[in-house]
Amino acid sequence: MSKSISPLLPIVYSSEVTAAKARGAPLVALESTIITHGMPFPGNLEMARSVEQIVRLEGAVPATIAVIEGVLHIGLEPEQIAALAQMKDVMKLSRADIAFALAERRSGATTVAATMIAAARAGISVFATGGIGGVHRGAEESFDISADIEELARTAVIVVSAGPKAILDIPKTLEMLETRGVPVVTYDSEEFPAFWSRISGLKSPLTLPSPAAIANFQRMREQLGIDGGMLIANPVPLEDEIAREEMEIYIGRALASAEREEITGKAVTPFLLDTIFHMTGGRSLKTNIALVENNARLAAEIAVAMNA
Amino acid sequence: MSKSISPLLPIVYSSEVTAAKARGAPLVALESTIITHGMPFPGNLEMARSVEQIVRLEGAVPATIAVIEGVLHIGLEPEQIAALAQMKDVMKLSRADIAFALAERRSGATTVAATMIAAARAGISVFATGGIGGVHRGAEESFDISADIEELARTAVIVVSAGPKAILDIPKTLEMLETRGVPVVTYDSEEFPAFWSRISGLKSPLTLPSPAAIANFQRMREQLGIDGGMLIANPVPLEDEIAREEMEIYIGRALASAEREEITGKAVTPFLLDTIFHMTGGRSLKTNIALVENNARLAAEIAVAMNA
Amino acid sequence: MSKSISPLLPIVYSSEVTAAKARGAPLVALESTIITHGMPFPGNLEMARSVEQIVRLEGAVPATIAVIEGVLHIGLEPEQIAALAQMKDVMKLSRADIAFALAERRSGATTVAATMIAAARAGISVFATGGIGGVHRGAEESFDISADIEELARTAVIVVSAGPKAILDIPKTLEMLETRGVPVVTYDSEEFPAFWSRISGLKSPLTLPSPAAIANFQRMREQLGIDGGMLIANPVPLEDEIAREEMEIYIGRALASAEREEITGKAVTPFLLDTIFHMTGGRSLKTNIALVENNARLAAEIAVAMNA
Ligand SMILES: [Mn+2]
Ligand SMILES: [Mn+2]
Ligand SMILES: [Mn+2]
Repeated sequence: MSKSISPLLPIVYSSEVTAAKARGAPLVALESTIITHGMPFPGNLEMARSVEQIVRLEGAVPATIAVIEGVLHIGLEPEQIAALAQMKDVMKLSRADIAFALAERRSGATTVAATMIAAARAGISVFATGGIGGVHRGAEESFDISADIEELARTAVIVVSAGPKAILDIPKTLEMLETRGVPVVTYDSEEFPAFWSRISGLKSPLTLPSPAAIANFQRMREQLGIDGGMLIANPVPLEDEIAREEMEIYIGRALASAEREEITGKAVTPFLLDTIFHMTGGRSLKTNIALVENNARLAAEIAVAMNA
Repeated sequence: MSKSISPLLPIVYSSEVTAAKARGAPLVALESTIITHGMPFPGNLEMARSVEQIVRLEGAVPATIAVIEGVLHIGLEPEQIAALAQMKDVMKLSRADIAFALAERRSGATTVAATMIAAARAGISVFATGGIGGVHRGAEESFDISADIEELARTAVIVVSAGPKAILDIPKTLEMLETRGVPVVTYDSEEFPAFWSRISGLKSPLTLPSPAAIANFQRMREQLGIDGGMLIANPVPLEDEIAREEMEIYIGRALASAEREEITGKAVTPFLLDTIFHMTGGRSLKTNIALVENNARLAAEIAVAMNA
Repeated sequence: MSKSISPLLPIVYSSEVTAAKARGAPLVALESTIITHGMPFPGNLEMARSVEQIVRLEGAVPATIAVIEGVLHIGLEPEQIAALAQMKDVMKLSRADIAFALAERRSGATTVAATMIAAARAGISVFATGGIGGVHRGAEESFDISADIEELARTAVIVVSAGPKAILDIPKTLEMLETRGVPVVTYDSEEFPAFWSRISGLKSPLTLPSPAAIANFQRMREQLGIDGGMLIANPVPLEDEIAREEMEIYIGRALASAEREEITGKAVTPFLLDTIFHMTGGRSLKTNIALVENNARLAAEIAVAMNA
């Protein structure tokens, strides 16, 4: 289901990804919004490096995706990651505007939706992130819903996450994923996780016990001709989690701050994450890094299984 | 618009369907959730047999669709229908999980969405059911909306129903079908039906007077390159209907029971149908069978007209 | 991404469009609902002629689209426009029913969604209209949302408008366009317009300063393999605008009238536009004509740039 790439598309593969494609090695896409909008420097750079290293240790090749000065990068060289981690005024790109950054020669970090698009075009079928976007709390009035759900319904990429970001309305996000026909599989647990917490209070729609089973499910979807991706929810390791009851207090306060300060649109999620970072004295960030690393490991295992 | 079938897909055609495909005979897909989750045994088995027989009498060939131990069946042999009608712990499969049942070698009954996917893959363009899923009452708060609407917006199959199940919010279901661009055609009436009742209080978006006109409309959609299916609403025969005012009382009570007993997710619709069955002393089931038979007849006529 | 046209499709190109296609001239699609349902005769006819003439003056060829007695017309001859402008009981066609009008040999005017479908099938990639449909005020309860958003998410046509019709809920319409991944670009302004007014109080998601930049963005989307269209918002000229505060009073009163008179479905938008026409002593219509002409000019410039 991957579309052919136009020869006019300004796309560059890192040396590591180029070599991996030449020898048919398994690849894992990584997003860049988490680097530019999700964490402060220099923690974001350390996280980006560590996540790439984890993918390599599991036998796959990392392809961090970003738009730099109008060029779509599939994999970043070490100095490019370092530069991105300190860049200011980077766009936050989704389905609607990833091509805008290319056309206008801007720089931008890719959200889940835009990373899925880039990965699919580059022939990469597995992607690790922290948490996906979804239905915002209050969306029944605001209609504020991430394009990540649309992308999961359209683009055949396996997205490995710790669930939707817990600042969202998780029950409504699950409902909308079901409505749009997106499989939601929790890895090795019947309980759907809530990003910083292993427990959301919701039963997972589906559960699979191994990377091989996940790869097999995706292959069967392709054999049946079903397009669209799937969401893997990978609970944060027990030693890193923050209990849901505790997190809900911080989330409630952060949402109240955002409303008071009239934060809207694409600024909402970065504002909430930053507010929660300060409220938890940095613990939320430590957990966030742990869950991204955990997801990178599982994604690499799935990519290896898909290649088998 | 049908996609090619992967040689790796575990798919089996019944002997009757195989013969029909060989001679180019018209086919009608039938769903299996109505057998496993919609009616108690042995009424469900009698209904399944009777519906298949009606399709045959109209000159078409029935293809009841289900997943049995990891194999997608397009058409069931008589002993398979008998076994399915008594099977326990059968999954209820939709777009998100039909491939899951195949991959994990499970058994599952197909909802409208999953039956449409299977029918399209098998080259069957007409499908008879009782009522489609849609927007649940209270969805403005719960976001509980069936994937059947997504599938109608995507997959080129004519779905013959008695309208959305009347336990749903019918006006919101019609709005969402319009938003997603799905044609809604009431057969031979300007009044949109309400499953057990001939009258919903709503005017039908479109009306057509004959199977040939329905077939012609679908052909024109294909010629214009519009993908997605269409919903045919076929009012239940007058002698079998239960008046809308009466049904609304039962539905209201059943919804209150579901809330009290905290029934959620895929369990809601079977619970409501069962509760209403008991409230009406079985009349709701009799009407349900009558409308499915009525739909099978019309679907066969449309399949014959599509073949002409 | 244009699909091949079936030889059975009843489609006719005007002599002017036929000649333009032969010599590879830039084409601009124009909708017909604005003629049949948007303005009274003879103002509607004058507007239709003037808009076509503006497209020609900018070096492109107009293709007004309508269904007449079961034939899809890509471009209308002068006498056909004159006849359409006075026709009664013309259907208002969207994604769900454009093929219905063809199949049943009816006549119908095309909304934004249906015009996009017809334009895409005819190989026309730019389309000028007044304002698009979107999320109706009160949609959080009514679920009344136009199929125009679905079409923008699916069909690769650039739609040049003055924003969504201001009778709609503009913030919710912007949210839903983002959710569905549709680019929203305001031409040469950072402020998103509100149809009759240059100002909506909302920042535009994206801004581009020239027809060439818009053409370049669309080309980049195609090179990246992203399907779907984009919405260009072109603010009404300053000398023609009616201030937003003033318009909001009329809109509020017109909505109250519609509710009082129980106007529903496809009749709502024409009723509101007509009520506002009377409330403003015809000024709203003068502005509407000015903005359509302004959009035709920009669309022609984009079509020329796409051809370069
Ligand atoms: Mn948003
Ligand atoms: Mn549901
Ligand atoms: Mn509507």
